[in-house]
Amino acid sequence: MSAFERMWTDLAGVGRAASGGYRRFAWTATDAVLREWFRGEAGRRGMDVLPDRAGNLWAWTGDPDAAGPGVVLGSHLDSVPDGGAFDGPLGVVSAFAALDLLADRGAALRRPVGVVCFADEEGARFGVACAGSRLLTGALDPDRARSLPDDDGSTMAEAMSAAGQDPRTVGRDAEALRRIGCFLELHVEQGRGLADVRDGRGAAVGLASRIWPHGRWRLDLRGRADHAGTTRLADREDPMPALASAIREARAAAERHGALATIGKLHVRPNGVNAIPSAVTAWLDARGPAETGVRDVVAAVGAAAGTDPVEESWTPATAFDPALRDRLAAVLTGPEGPPPVLSTGAGHDAGVLAAAGVLTAMVFVRNPTGVSHSPAEHADLADCLAGVTALASAVEALA
Amino acid sequence: MSAFERMWTDLAGVGRAASGGYRRFAWTATDAVLREWFRGEAGRRGMDVLPDRAGNLWAWTGDPDAAGPGVVLGSHLDSVPDGGAFDGPLGVVSAFAALDLLADRGAALRRPVGVVCFADEEGARFGVACAGSRLLTGALDPDRARSLPDDDGSTMAEAMSAAGQDPRTVGRDAEALRRIGCFLELHVEQGRGLADVRDGRGAAVGLASRIWPHGRWRLDLRGRADHAGTTRLADREDPMPALASAIREARAAAERHGALATIGKLHVRPNGVNAIPSAVTAWLDARGPAETGVRDVVAAVGAAAGTDPVEESWTPATAFDPALRDRLAAVLTGPEGPPPVLSTGAGHDAGVLAAAGVLTAMVFVRNPTGVSHSPAEHADLADCLAGVTALASAVEALA
Repeated sequence: MSAFERMWTDLAGVGRAASGGYRRFAWTATDAVLREWFRGEAGRRGMDVLPDRAGNLWAWTGDPDAAGPGVVLGSHLDSVPDGGAFDGPLGVVSAFAALDLLADRGAALRRPVGVVCFADEEGARFGVACAGSRLLTGALDPDRARSLPDDDGSTMAEAMSAAGQDPRTVGRDAEALRRIGCFLELHVEQGRGLADVRDGRGAAVGLASRIWPHGRWRLDLRGRADHAGTTRLADREDPMPALASAIREARAAAERHGALATIGKLHVRPNGVNAIPSAVTAWLDARGPAETGVRDVVAAVGAAAGTDPVEESWTPATAFDPALRDRLAAVLTGPEGPPPVLSTGAGHDAGVLAAAGVLTAMVFVRNPTGVSHSPAEHADLADCLAGVTALASAVEALA
Repeated sequence: MSAFERMWTDLAGVGRAASGGYRRFAWTATDAVLREWFRGEAGRRGMDVLPDRAGNLWAWTGDPDAAGPGVVLGSHLDSVPDGGAFDGPLGVVSAFAALDLLADRGAALRRPVGVVCFADEEGARFGVACAGSRLLTGALDPDRARSLPDDDGSTMAEAMSAAGQDPRTVGRDAEALRRIGCFLELHVEQGRGLADVRDGRGAAVGLASRIWPHGRWRLDLRGRADHAGTTRLADREDPMPALASAIREARAAAERHGALATIGKLHVRPNGVNAIPSAVTAWLDARGPAETGVRDVVAAVGAAAGTDPVEESWTPATAFDPALRDRLAAVLTGPEGPPPVLSTGAGHDAGVLAAAGVLTAMVFVRNPTGVSHSPAEHADLADCLAGVTALASAVEALA
């Protein structure tokens, strides 16, 4: 069994849900197991682990403070609710496996090389995606982060404390940022771009051009609790019809603007079969090639629901460094030509770092069905190993 | 302070939620406090408490086994999520207060008099309303009841066991039924019927004629979990549009049929901001003056949502005994004439008993706003005390 397969097997049972997917949320007991696994893999390779102020974990070969900024690989280990095995962990496991491959090749690296595990990338618990990388770069205000509540009313500060992370130190970490010469995030593709290229023959590995502008909005729909069996239709203040309008307009507006809009999370209060709801909260995820289109979709959904959408996060379009991408494309060119270059609607820590001025690139691994954020998410082992090889070649060229 | 006010004050803090309403669910720690309160009030009056096989509590003055069936007053103490203080407890507190009033009057009663506290009337936890009275009469199959799951995956059997109630004994209880000569349930009105009668002058107390046919249905809307940021609109299997159609059709069909239809409870899986849902479950509550109208509404909502509604409970129209009602109307006739007689869309334990052939009547107390199943539910103290007096007069006439 390869080191890749061993690591994959070690992670397979952690945070697995009855759905077959994963429930790996930030600062939980499951998260602690994942972080301990990361420290174990670092230790196995003699790497020092330096946590940053946001709780992201950095494993280093060589001393990035003494020997100058290094080449960093990595991704995240947390998941959406009932997410797949690949989104996040594939990037971390492939990073360690790439270092093993370089050691096997006897590669002589002149620069330090790091592997990072970002905290709370999915935002599944506190509602802000890429919280770890945003805190690191200063894009997320520490006071706001500390006070973010989860569905059980615990704040991020309380959750961090419970997990042994001091929430008072959270904030932009210039020292950790200084250590990053460049960052390469490998990630399973979350669409069928690589599966469909080359007239359907596909490609195991590709590179990212840019991330679409994207954000999350909260729709607060107010009603008045009342008895479902005795309140006349005319007397009702029921928030459900506004929800129906929001759902319909999200789809219609996204179609008009060539964008994506999703209402995937709802809270209904009091959520009783025979009670007219006093309130419904719906969350809108919207993304598209152009910011104006995304903004138009959000405004249209708000108008349809009769409420002003509250922006919970916003990420402008992010382009990865073209020179770095061209250099990697040259390294990864094979008999079938250079790797495909794709844009994506999914946010990533790599995008947050790129927006903060870090030299950044992304490597995608083919997803045969395109399905992601689902137990059915998949990548073939051969493609995963092609991703490891690509990462190793990239590090060899850069470090 | 009257005994009524003392009892009301004792209950005010039990199961109170941040909303100002109550979360008093069957077989919870809060429920245990309420049941203990009931036993305390019975003991204070020298009444023996005889639980039945379903876990309903019966407090008796006199021996209903030796002295023949008695007159029973009472209601329930559980609530919907964030329900009001009156729905249920008003009937139990008024029953005890009516016995106090009869004792003060020195009334000589020839028949035993009982006060009942029905278990799990609202069905807030296990989804079946009037579970306690339905088990008592055999209208709810014990095996089905035992296996009903709550939202946390605990079954009713497990919840009963945890509360010290043996779930194996659950089932029709002929002995407990034999003790009931007649049952009078006092309940806060859940509409503005009493507030609006007599050209708006209103009436403190009224009597029930019948309960509308009503039921609950579950709509299982299937989708496929997928990434909200990368899955093309055309590739989505999103259950949310079907939910939107169900919400709209519930309203439209109810309007067409002069009925009531409510979607007040939803479960979304996985309920993540950036995940297209794999499934949405919606519950439909439908009621109306005629069964055909209700059935048509349910069928229309199912057709709009593209799913076959699963019937979780169904109660046909229930008429209360006309002779008993006329006798009570005569007793309660005052200077303004006989008490108003109302039909209602709300189900009650009294309806379950009436359907099982028990001689049954209902007394309603005025609700000035009509609001119920809400923290804003209210009845004036003067009207509550008028209800106590009405109950006492009824018992004096019947026992």
